[in-house]
Amino acid sequence: MAEVLMVGSVALDSVETPYGKVDRALGGAATFASVAASFWTPVQAVGVVGDDFDPAHLAFLAQRGVDTEGIEVIAGGETFWWGGVYSADMNSRETLFTKLNVFEEFHPVLPAAYRQTPYLFLANIHPALQLDVLDQATGATFVGLDTMNLWIDITRDTLLQVIARTSAVFLNDEEARQLTGEANPVAAGLALLGLGPRLAVVKKGEHGALLFTAEGIFSAPGYPLERVFDPTGCGDCFAGGFMGYLAATEDLSEANLRRAVIYGSVVASYNAEDFSLDRLRTLTSDEIEARFEGFRRLTQF
Amino acid sequence: MAEVLMVGSVALDSVETPYGKVDRALGGAATFASVAASFWTPVQAVGVVGDDFDPAHLAFLAQRGVDTEGIEVIAGGETFWWGGVYSADMNSRETLFTKLNVFEEFHPVLPAAYRQTPYLFLANIHPALQLDVLDQATGATFVGLDTMNLWIDITRDTLLQVIARTSAVFLNDEEARQLTGEANPVAAGLALLGLGPRLAVVKKGEHGALLFTAEGIFSAPGYPLERVFDPTGCGDCFAGGFMGYLAATEDLSEANLRRAVIYGSVVASYNAEDFSLDRLRTLTSDEIEARFEGFRRLTQF
Repeated sequence: MAEVLMVGSVALDSVETPYGKVDRALGGAATFASVAASFWTPVQAVGVVGDDFDPAHLAFLAQRGVDTEGIEVIAGGETFWWGGVYSADMNSRETLFTKLNVFEEFHPVLPAAYRQTPYLFLANIHPALQLDVLDQATGATFVGLDTMNLWIDITRDTLLQVIARTSAVFLNDEEARQLTGEANPVAAGLALLGLGPRLAVVKKGEHGALLFTAEGIFSAPGYPLERVFDPTGCGDCFAGGFMGYLAATEDLSEANLRRAVIYGSVVASYNAEDFSLDRLRTLTSDEIEARFEGFRRLTQF
Repeated sequence: MAEVLMVGSVALDSVETPYGKVDRALGGAATFASVAASFWTPVQAVGVVGDDFDPAHLAFLAQRGVDTEGIEVIAGGETFWWGGVYSADMNSRETLFTKLNVFEEFHPVLPAAYRQTPYLFLANIHPALQLDVLDQATGATFVGLDTMNLWIDITRDTLLQVIARTSAVFLNDEEARQLTGEANPVAAGLALLGLGPRLAVVKKGEHGALLFTAEGIFSAPGYPLERVFDPTGCGDCFAGGFMGYLAATEDLSEANLRRAVIYGSVVASYNAEDFSLDRLRTLTSDEIEARFEGFRRLTQF
């Protein structure tokens, strides 16, 4: 069993969906990914918050087995704060505000104890920072990466440099199309492999995810939830669950990568059942295994 | 092995996609569904065309094992002619024109020999006509149904009457949402079951299909095609393949319904590889079985 290191945003989210709303709840890509991975393996998290960040959030992470030494608390600073509202059908969301606050000056520095961690996930931050983390993480042997449309637009070359040094990219279908210029999601996924990583995951939200490797394509369905309460952070939960399971098993075979995709989907689907990462606060290993079997029943023929 | 009866449009399609275009090529829901089903069982088709309809089309259907006695040829009439163009990403299409022609006065009359056919597919036509066909098809024991947004809008009550008498509904996700008022596709699928049929299929295009039965939900992926040449008729090929396989096997167990969904998906995916139903002209049973196994490799974990 290996540890996994998560680098990215730690944030407060104000979210409104058709089912309710929540104000300044715990969020951020590194947070969702860390808690998701924590169901399988010890996690280290690197991020930055202001001193408005409730210490109870750090205590929750610690209780989940997440080492928060790498989360810097800036005295007098304010935590990254995002606000958004989802459409009635949950298929689109509008950002109401993005206050980067201390995250604007985030320059991740890995504590010495993190530099040899073999599994590393670079959540969505500026590709130049991702490169810098890669240079610090001298012991990382399996590196996952997420990004966003903004970086594909404005700093594509640096992003391609990072991707060439990663093992796995996790993009949603729009990002995969935008980065590769392929309108077809399958052509886009195959093109991602051509950029260097050994595997690419194209995330399709409620429609599941496609895994591309040299051995072929794996299609994982979305779990059929009758009610998607709040999809915020599901993509990060997917990547976190995937990375955590892989770190725990240290097995990069095709069969195990597919299981990692399903476990990632399991955590993501649970995460959608409540605001913030509240559902993950009560989630148990038994529930995870039950839904893993649910994915089997859902797809078996 | 039972026969299957298809009732619906027989048409000529003028279609443009990013890969080319075709003018007045063979199309129509009953045509696609009939040819798809013909890979498993003898088919009877009921429709109407004008005398501008190339007899070679009827000969092709006959050669595929489709009995065309039920396709009326109206002397001096013109065949239903549809024209449309697909967007660059193939995710939307614009109808350029719809000339119903002889189809506008279509009043399906089943030849006496068709009335006892146990498997019946009501392709998308006016629900009042679907009801009329049901009354004629006294021997039908398994009835599938498709419809469209127009009928959900303007003749909802009649449509609900038909659905209450069917065994299976095949709707795309938008139609399922519109008919049930449920924004969530899973809630919509479950609500469809509440309307009377023993099974409901929600078709999601490139994202596959969901099968809802009393025993649970089955998620079939879209086959990962690198190039979707022309998706016209894929929904009808899905329903046709599903109905044909079911009629051939006469087994309504959950396991066999799931296989029917995959076989429907197999034919639909091949159909997308060329214009009109040209790919089905050369399709072989070996190719069908190979792609069925491809679906297994695609989903197994």
